[in-house]
Amino acid sequence: MPLKTDAAIEITAFRWVPEFAQGVVRDLRARWALEEAGLDYRVRLLGQQRPPEYLQEQPFDQVPILNDGDVHLFESGAIVQYLGEKSEALLPHEPQAKYRAIGWTYAALNSVEPALLNLLLIDVFFTGQEWAKLRRPGAEDFAKLKLKRLSDWLGDKPWLEGDRFTIGDLMMITTLRFLRHTDLVAQFPNLDAFVKRGEARPAFQRALEDQLATFREHEPEGVAA
Amino acid sequence: MPLKTDAAIEITAFRWVPEFAQGVVRDLRARWALEEAGLDYRVRLLGQQRPPEYLQEQPFDQVPILNDGDVHLFESGAIVQYLGEKSEALLPHEPQAKYRAIGWTYAALNSVEPALLNLLLIDVFFTGQEWAKLRRPGAEDFAKLKLKRLSDWLGDKPWLEGDRFTIGDLMMITTLRFLRHTDLVAQFPNLDAFVKRGEARPAFQRALEDQLATFREHEPEGVAA
Repeated sequence: MPLKTDAAIEITAFRWVPEFAQGVVRDLRARWALEEAGLDYRVRLLGQQRPPEYLQEQPFDQVPILNDGDVHLFESGAIVQYLGEKSEALLPHEPQAKYRAIGWTYAALNSVEPALLNLLLIDVFFTGQEWAKLRRPGAEDFAKLKLKRLSDWLGDKPWLEGDRFTIGDLMMITTLRFLRHTDLVAQFPNLDAFVKRGEARPAFQRALEDQLATFREHEPEGVAA
Repeated sequence: MPLKTDAAIEITAFRWVPEFAQGVVRDLRARWALEEAGLDYRVRLLGQQRPPEYLQEQPFDQVPILNDGDVHLFESGAIVQYLGEKSEALLPHEPQAKYRAIGWTYAALNSVEPALLNLLLIDVFFTGQEWAKLRRPGAEDFAKLKLKRLSDWLGDKPWLEGDRFTIGDLMMITTLRFLRHTDLVAQFPNLDAFVKRGEARPAFQRALEDQLATFREHEPEGVAA
């Protein structure tokens, strides 16, 4: 169990978030990578209002950050890559394989996530607003184009670069989970299987359970279970 | 002059794009990094319709990709990081400094670019559409919040992590240029100076001029200069 109160590695996470965000908050990526690598970590919990000095650690007021001795990092992609360099279970050493995995990490965050997150925000955060109703069909088409490109690339491979799971798969699967409120991923059976393959990994299961356990523990009064 | 027809490193770029995209297409980032590192490169030009087999090189049909011997990469962030690892002029070797630079590279692409690109697309690509008119004030507010966070972090430092220019600055400055059709960056004098400081670097000047020269050379007939 890598979650240990006296661990050297610390990450930040939210004490509680609304249900639509539970299981997709980005500390899940760091937790999953830490579990895959078998690295102990502890969690510093933050409320929805962060203290002003947190901006010195995370300029955009987000989670997670990672502290590991002299290394102080923010951005989930950078954190997962840093953890990958500590463990060949996540990131191969050979340059081409290493940079393919890093390329997919960036692809998840820049070529895929914005289109998917846009649809999630339209459906959940801006729901009912007139612009969101008008924009939704185009936003869905754009998300589906991204999924089609990814599905075409994946083909019948188990992971994005073949037989070996890397940080690129970890980042892409956590990104595809932003559409779990829709059936869009299920429309691409190979992508659906790819996400389920990732979610079935024991390291993912532990990471998800630890995130959700914190939310259960800190659920505000008056919020329906 | 790193642009050489027999160079080992190859990148892809567009033969021509409309004026609003000239000077911001993402091969600029690779060109700038190559110039800073003093690495020779050649360019393979692509039309607006790419051959279907290009998807084997770039699953999302974008530019740039990079080929360097056995290394075949896509995503501008991954390419710039790869080039950074070849040159300490772009990426320090010491772990904390290295990962701070990588963190800013991810921050540019995931915490800043989506908000800025959204505004550019509303203003240029979706202009006149009803949802775009309704959404614009909120999209501008969100972009300004990102700029404020970045401005607060930067303070009076010349570069994001202090005195030393890194790939993080290169990625952030090319990202901030997506708002050059507005005065939003100019509303934050330290950010405005940060962008101008980057644009004044000889390596940036050469990279920009080489991208623009290609567009001038391939301008379609009937397009006003």
